[in-house]
Amino acid sequence: MQLREATVSIVGLGLMGGSLALALRDKCGRLVGVARRAEIAELALRNRVVDSAGCDMQAGVAGADIVVLATPVRHILASIPEVATHMRPGALLMDMGSTKARVVAALDRIPPCMAAVGGHPMCGKEVGGLESADACLFIGATFVLTPTARTTGEALLLAHELAEATGARPLVMEAEAHDSAAALISHLPYLLASSLVQAEARAQDHAADMLAASGFRDTSRLAASQVDMMLDTLLTNRQSVGAALDLFEQEIARARGLLNDPEGLKSWMEAAQARRRGMFQ
Amino acid sequence: MQLREATVSIVGLGLMGGSLALALRDKCGRLVGVARRAEIAELALRNRVVDSAGCDMQAGVAGADIVVLATPVRHILASIPEVATHMRPGALLMDMGSTKARVVAALDRIPPCMAAVGGHPMCGKEVGGLESADACLFIGATFVLTPTARTTGEALLLAHELAEATGARPLVMEAEAHDSAAALISHLPYLLASSLVQAEARAQDHAADMLAASGFRDTSRLAASQVDMMLDTLLTNRQSVGAALDLFEQEIARARGLLNDPEGLKSWMEAAQARRRGMFQ
Repeated sequence: MQLREATVSIVGLGLMGGSLALALRDKCGRLVGVARRAEIAELALRNRVVDSAGCDMQAGVAGADIVVLATPVRHILASIPEVATHMRPGALLMDMGSTKARVVAALDRIPPCMAAVGGHPMCGKEVGGLESADACLFIGATFVLTPTARTTGEALLLAHELAEATGARPLVMEAEAHDSAAALISHLPYLLASSLVQAEARAQDHAADMLAASGFRDTSRLAASQVDMMLDTLLTNRQSVGAALDLFEQEIARARGLLNDPEGLKSWMEAAQARRRGMFQ
Repeated sequence: MQLREATVSIVGLGLMGGSLALALRDKCGRLVGVARRAEIAELALRNRVVDSAGCDMQAGVAGADIVVLATPVRHILASIPEVATHMRPGALLMDMGSTKARVVAALDRIPPCMAAVGGHPMCGKEVGGLESADACLFIGATFVLTPTARTTGEALLLAHELAEATGARPLVMEAEAHDSAAALISHLPYLLASSLVQAEARAQDHAADMLAASGFRDTSRLAASQVDMMLDTLLTNRQSVGAALDLFEQEIARARGLLNDPEGLKSWMEAAQARRRGMFQ
């Protein structure tokens, strides 16, 4: 099976599912969308995001060569057994959930005649919904693929081809390694952004509200993320998020202590600056 | 005295001083630059950033109607007495330092024949130096003006005119109110960004280094700020920074506790989302 002949069913037509459909247009045989709400299925059809769409999961996935689950993680976990029941033997089940260990474990419990691999494209926007979907969302992003115990070489190749077709760079890694890393570079930043916004609100400092500019805007951006998506992400990655919080709280305590040690503070700031400048340009 | 006839001397030709010079071109009578290093003075002259430039503070400020100190705050505090000695009676001394309470106190100790007002444009970039200077840096930014006990109506009007000439929106407030607000919306975000970068580095997680994307990039952006500028900022605003850290640490502890309370976590996340979406759009 190659992507250009495949029927791809996407379950969930929000930002991620909608963007995947737009990115795969003309790259696969046929695109089918499954939405929770009828008006979203209608909107996707009207805008030719997919070739057919509806709210019936069984009808939506029955003819698929590849099914991609693109809903929040707890919904993905709940959907996997049912979706697998309706897929044809030999079809590939993928997902785009933000955490991978529990998804990979659930994928390993579906009937053995199905192929499966976990996926997570490292991109997003703080606004959600089909109306924010963007064919270019994945371009240049890393698209993590997390094999399960059952993932065959053929299944991995097809998932790889799908990820590349979106313009992303596929990267195969273990689910646990993904989740630890994501806690540090995504879930922790989200909690910092939200805590910053809450702290600023609690200060009830009208001047602060007025003066907030680009520094506050960027540092707090992730606080505007979709709550449903982030809630499931945090709840399915508590251990790694806790470990990332430990590291962070040690650093912020160190910074506070260094406010009385100008030389030490300067060294700490210089190390952070050098590290940050080395990571991004 | 009106701005268009005034000789404006800018002490410090880095990002802020250089940008001020570029923004005031054709808006004032004459621009004089004072740099610490001869090659920066030469660069400013060669690129016509100023009409004359040198490293001699006395020569640079002697003929000025307005002197603007555009160096890190501790350097501003150390310069104020000497600069005032060399200014002509009746001239206006301003600054663009990131904290204002100690600057305003220092401005109140110069000879009574001088006019003075503190200033802080709420804008910047994480890269510094004259080569990053930008005539448009101030456009649309809030330019805080903090009067001192000696600030006359005439001095405030002239400072207001200068701020407006850069394209910024002048806003008069007390120095202490500025410093509390700046701790919340600028100095705290800087410490979060730097602590995030340090925590990520300490994890020594190669996958995290590889996966860091736009969320980490934006949340950590301020960690790349100029160390000299931010060090002076933090050291001259320790009390307000400590209070902002208190509020933040309470929130992050709350978030950690809520990882075991899905409903409570969701409410907290929704409040942060609503607040952030209301602040910027």
